[in-house]
Amino acid sequence: MPDAPPGPSAISGTTRLYVVLGDPVAQVRAPGLLNDLFARTARDAVLVPVHVGPDDLEEVMRGLRHMRNLDGILVTVPHKIEVCRYADLLGPAAEVAGSANALRRNPDGTWLADNFDGAGFVHGLRDNGHDPAGTTVALAGAGGAGRAVAAALLTAGIAQLRLYDPDSTRREDVLARLEARWPGRVTVGAEGDFDGDGVDIAVNATPLGMRPDDPLPFDLARLPHTCAVADIIMKPAETALLKAARDSGRPVVHGRHMLDSQVLLYEEFFALHAPERKGRLEP
Amino acid sequence: MPDAPPGPSAISGTTRLYVVLGDPVAQVRAPGLLNDLFARTARDAVLVPVHVGPDDLEEVMRGLRHMRNLDGILVTVPHKIEVCRYADLLGPAAEVAGSANALRRNPDGTWLADNFDGAGFVHGLRDNGHDPAGTTVALAGAGGAGRAVAAALLTAGIAQLRLYDPDSTRREDVLARLEARWPGRVTVGAEGDFDGDGVDIAVNATPLGMRPDDPLPFDLARLPHTCAVADIIMKPAETALLKAARDSGRPVVHGRHMLDSQVLLYEEFFALHAPERKGRLEP
Repeated sequence: MPDAPPGPSAISGTTRLYVVLGDPVAQVRAPGLLNDLFARTARDAVLVPVHVGPDDLEEVMRGLRHMRNLDGILVTVPHKIEVCRYADLLGPAAEVAGSANALRRNPDGTWLADNFDGAGFVHGLRDNGHDPAGTTVALAGAGGAGRAVAAALLTAGIAQLRLYDPDSTRREDVLARLEARWPGRVTVGAEGDFDGDGVDIAVNATPLGMRPDDPLPFDLARLPHTCAVADIIMKPAETALLKAARDSGRPVVHGRHMLDSQVLLYEEFFALHAPERKGRLEP
Repeated sequence: MPDAPPGPSAISGTTRLYVVLGDPVAQVRAPGLLNDLFARTARDAVLVPVHVGPDDLEEVMRGLRHMRNLDGILVTVPHKIEVCRYADLLGPAAEVAGSANALRRNPDGTWLADNFDGAGFVHGLRDNGHDPAGTTVALAGAGGAGRAVAAALLTAGIAQLRLYDPDSTRREDVLARLEARWPGRVTVGAEGDFDGDGVDIAVNATPLGMRPDDPLPFDLARLPHTCAVADIIMKPAETALLKAARDSGRPVVHGRHMLDSQVLLYEEFFALHAPERKGRLEP
């Protein structure tokens, strides 16, 4: 492996830490993506997975904040909403979405949380030839990732968002957040209310599709034949929804694009683009 | 680097975690030693440094205990004594020394703390041709490492231990612990009481020697010309004490032997010798 990045033997007492929190955590792709980025940018840093259950998030976050060589925290299911409580500041996307997937330690010691799921998803859409500006979008799921995708789509200039979620409290909460910033562009409903008429892009942001026996998150037959179908699920790489959409001739956008596109955003958020001024490259 | 172990890209969501806690932490050698061991034994595991100050140890230990994929904690200055409070069980060396430098999660979820500084030091002495059995030893320093070295020397069968420390409370505490197990073989005193007559091995377990302007921990002129002189300090590799001892023709034992010898003991403690049954080697 001539192109192998520096190995664990390159981890030393000076190495800066990043973690990714999840439950489960075995499926996360962040270690591969971020450690490759650290190697490419010659950072003396490493990202490791941390498996933490919902009841233990507070203790773990407190412990992490007291680790002086920890610079960043990535967050995946089911912690994206709860983790906002442990940040001192929320960035604009986290503020609107009410969920975060990345936290960084600022130079003054405060922690800033922001959410790059939505921006990563929109990047991924554009990279696949689907500019969302002016379109009508149907989105299933108003959880941590769903609301981040919703806010980013509205920021990207979609004309109308139809948001579906089985939990009425969650629906109303998200509607209130989005209405405040983008009045008149959002409608919400239960799954049974799904309206595919005139939809340009349909998105799954629910967990449905992770397991082989899950039902589809929405009925493809209700969508126009030209409607693009996107899923944010990464495992399996192609969900039953995307397979059915592809079989029906509709363009599809896979879940991996949301995360792949986020690496560039993390590079900016964690200030990894600038050459490092201290670390293992110095004597 | 054809022999480079698997790189950070080998870290994934399934990787098990080990940490080393210290303040400072930049000087620790554990990441290099343990990550090499993980690579040799094909473990899907990584050890990273965690910088934690004395006031933050409790929060960090609580957070670490709630991380479900964390299997082990190594501990260095200044936490070796305090960390015992956060273990459920103390191994024999930690019990006697009142300090620990390694904790592992047992299969039942409890945490066991033990201390390998002493056993590592005795291994290092023997590897350098100095069997301590039956000898008289002068030891400067009754802190976390000093008391571990004291207990291991007594376990190894030394005839007499003369222990020196400027802190009378600490001296009396250590004397009581050692007397209870090895009655009549230990004397304690302040630095000014140093008695080198008939000493076979003299050991520095104080921090004196880490900085260039530190005084020597004891006066070499009071020791027999044949007395072996050992230091547990690893940086610098050769302290002023060892240099003076070597210049005077006395045999010396460097600090690195204490840690190098401990890798084998960690392999046993963390059960790393058996082939792993799951991990990155499986599909």
